[in-house]
Amino acid sequence: MALIVQKYGGTSVGTVERIKAVAEKIKRFRDRGDDVVVAVSAMSGETNRLTTLATEITDSIPPRELDVLLTTGEQVTIALLSMALNELGCDARSYTGSQVKILTDSTHNKARILNIEEHRMREDLKLGRVIVVAGFQGVDAEGHITTLGRGGSDTTAVALAAALKADECQIYTDVDGVYTTDPRVVPEAKRLDRITFEEMLEMASQGSKVLQIRSVEFAGKYNVPLRVLSSFEDGPGTLITYEEDEVEDALISGIAFNRDEAKLTVLGVPDQPGVAYQILGPIGENNIEVDMIVQNIGADGTTDFTFTVHCNDLQKAQSILENTAKALGAREVIGDDKVVKISLVGVGMRSHAGIASKMFETLAKEGINIRMISTSEIKVTVVVDEKYLELGVRALHTAFGLDSETA
Amino acid sequence: MALIVQKYGGTSVGTVERIKAVAEKIKRFRDRGDDVVVAVSAMSGETNRLTTLATEITDSIPPRELDVLLTTGEQVTIALLSMALNELGCDARSYTGSQVKILTDSTHNKARILNIEEHRMREDLKLGRVIVVAGFQGVDAEGHITTLGRGGSDTTAVALAAALKADECQIYTDVDGVYTTDPRVVPEAKRLDRITFEEMLEMASQGSKVLQIRSVEFAGKYNVPLRVLSSFEDGPGTLITYEEDEVEDALISGIAFNRDEAKLTVLGVPDQPGVAYQILGPIGENNIEVDMIVQNIGADGTTDFTFTVHCNDLQKAQSILENTAKALGAREVIGDDKVVKISLVGVGMRSHAGIASKMFETLAKEGINIRMISTSEIKVTVVVDEKYLELGVRALHTAFGLDSETA
Repeated sequence: MALIVQKYGGTSVGTVERIKAVAEKIKRFRDRGDDVVVAVSAMSGETNRLTTLATEITDSIPPRELDVLLTTGEQVTIALLSMALNELGCDARSYTGSQVKILTDSTHNKARILNIEEHRMREDLKLGRVIVVAGFQGVDAEGHITTLGRGGSDTTAVALAAALKADECQIYTDVDGVYTTDPRVVPEAKRLDRITFEEMLEMASQGSKVLQIRSVEFAGKYNVPLRVLSSFEDGPGTLITYEEDEVEDALISGIAFNRDEAKLTVLGVPDQPGVAYQILGPIGENNIEVDMIVQNIGADGTTDFTFTVHCNDLQKAQSILENTAKALGAREVIGDDKVVKISLVGVGMRSHAGIASKMFETLAKEGINIRMISTSEIKVTVVVDEKYLELGVRALHTAFGLDSETA
Repeated sequence: MALIVQKYGGTSVGTVERIKAVAEKIKRFRDRGDDVVVAVSAMSGETNRLTTLATEITDSIPPRELDVLLTTGEQVTIALLSMALNELGCDARSYTGSQVKILTDSTHNKARILNIEEHRMREDLKLGRVIVVAGFQGVDAEGHITTLGRGGSDTTAVALAAALKADECQIYTDVDGVYTTDPRVVPEAKRLDRITFEEMLEMASQGSKVLQIRSVEFAGKYNVPLRVLSSFEDGPGTLITYEEDEVEDALISGIAFNRDEAKLTVLGVPDQPGVAYQILGPIGENNIEVDMIVQNIGADGTTDFTFTVHCNDLQKAQSILENTAKALGAREVIGDDKVVKISLVGVGMRSHAGIASKMFETLAKEGINIRMISTSEIKVTVVVDEKYLELGVRALHTAFGLDSETA
């Protein structure tokens, strides 16, 4: 007897047959006595269909009307899933974001949830009903329809779980859990039974895109136990927990990587206070997001300043930097988008020295030159040449004992 | 400078191109200074697409969830039409039935409108916005989504016009007005510039299905001037008015007919009080709707009792009647679905004697035998053999001076 919030994405409800399969899955939880609240996305393809209609009408889509248009996608899914549940003898009721209601701010297309009314859901649960909520959508204080932006259904599920103090929030996807690294790069990658929120945040921000990062932050903030599972096969998935003690006794939980980085270095900058601001200020003003930042102090009273941006922003950032460098009297600006970022992630490294040096040693043995290093409490990140990505990730995966025994 | 409510049906907004054309039409009203509130249907085909999805899920669709599903159809249209208006520089805002809000009772799939909040619309109109409202849908007091049933968008438009005390409610359809009779039967049929609500009600209930009958009743109740026009070509259409004086000076406004009637006669019923109830009671209990009822008193202390039902109900009604006839000691039950109903409609006949006899004379001249007669204040109806439908309607159309001079 637990209260479980489940989220099914667009692929999981992409056809009438899959919607029926989801209903069967939900019914199994009901049959064993669990209370179930479900958040669903639009059927796969539907959001694209609607967006195409809009772009055929106008090049400048009013954000408010786009939300009115797109939210019909999930509304179709909640109705069909409720029908499928009722067909199985499972009493169910659908609710749009406005009906629940999921109160958001008024930022159309990327609204933030402010509050969820739980009163009506509590009543339905008492009556033994499955509650089917449209993901991705909400309503602002003036009654305008809003959407939470891409991947917003995950956030809806977590917010529902937080509001209802659910025992678990289950995110059903097309993978069966969180892996030590991308199995397409390392076939020996293994599924983790548990991972902490902090580790998950580091993994997600580095491109292991199982979950929307905002939903993980949200879950951590409200201590919602989050589980990632497969819609299509049974299995325990990966539990994302906020208690470190519960995590398996491992130094490293996983290896994340990101191919989209580009590195920018300003060489020979006079070593004065305010230099970092003078360099990064104009970058931020141009809405370019900066990821890693490293500054080395040179011997000759100058310093080298290096940071990474998304590779799409390289050219723009570089031309801004050329001006800054001139003004600062710096020697040179070097841009490089043939780099990748590799990170070891694990709360276990907090209490263990030597993780970083073991990482560097492993890479050195493979002849991989490290371009940049950055560390945090639960992460060590290096930037290396693009061509070394697979070699580096595989070597580290083996060196830190992550390889699956069965693979 | 008038306040106009317009309604565009599914065919009028069936494609992106047609939605753009509707936006252009609305803009012309705005450009001449009118305030415009628009009610729209789902794009043609959309309701069928959604219904098919539902029937693929279950044979017993829960009415509440069907409403959640189907209302997405109009929601897509309001968003797209608002986008198209904004693209033309015409400030516009879309509203679902829940948002407006159109308060209904809780009868899913065929709810009745109880109230419309005008506050928010007044504000938008003051700001010069076109208001685009989803037709066919509303919300009950508990916030559940409801639909008004088939043709409900007409009712939405009329209700909006009544709430806002609009100067005119324009219903755009694929015909350019109300005709004296069906032009497919009588090529000489002509468009009426005006018709009274009462006449329109009689015409609509007899199968001249230009407008949803409930919307006409609604318009009459709230004195909303209603105009039927074509979406596709310009023209004045037909104004449906509640003031008889404004109607053209004609005895007869139109000729309605209905092919779906079936006639049932119980012969030789003992002429006692309560006989009508004994015959029609069991019919009503079986949810069979009775249309015309005629009773003739015979010479021998018995009476013949005749009434009409929809031809689909003939068999069921006849088998019920066989039992009733036996219990009453009646002589015989005769059923006949090879009949049609033809009606002369016109408020002008109130003050003119002899309409009925001229009608009978006209039919007699053509050798058409009359099976049944029924009259009301503004209508004379006859039932004749099916094969005489076209001949009878054309003869009457000419005899009462309805033929167009140009045709």
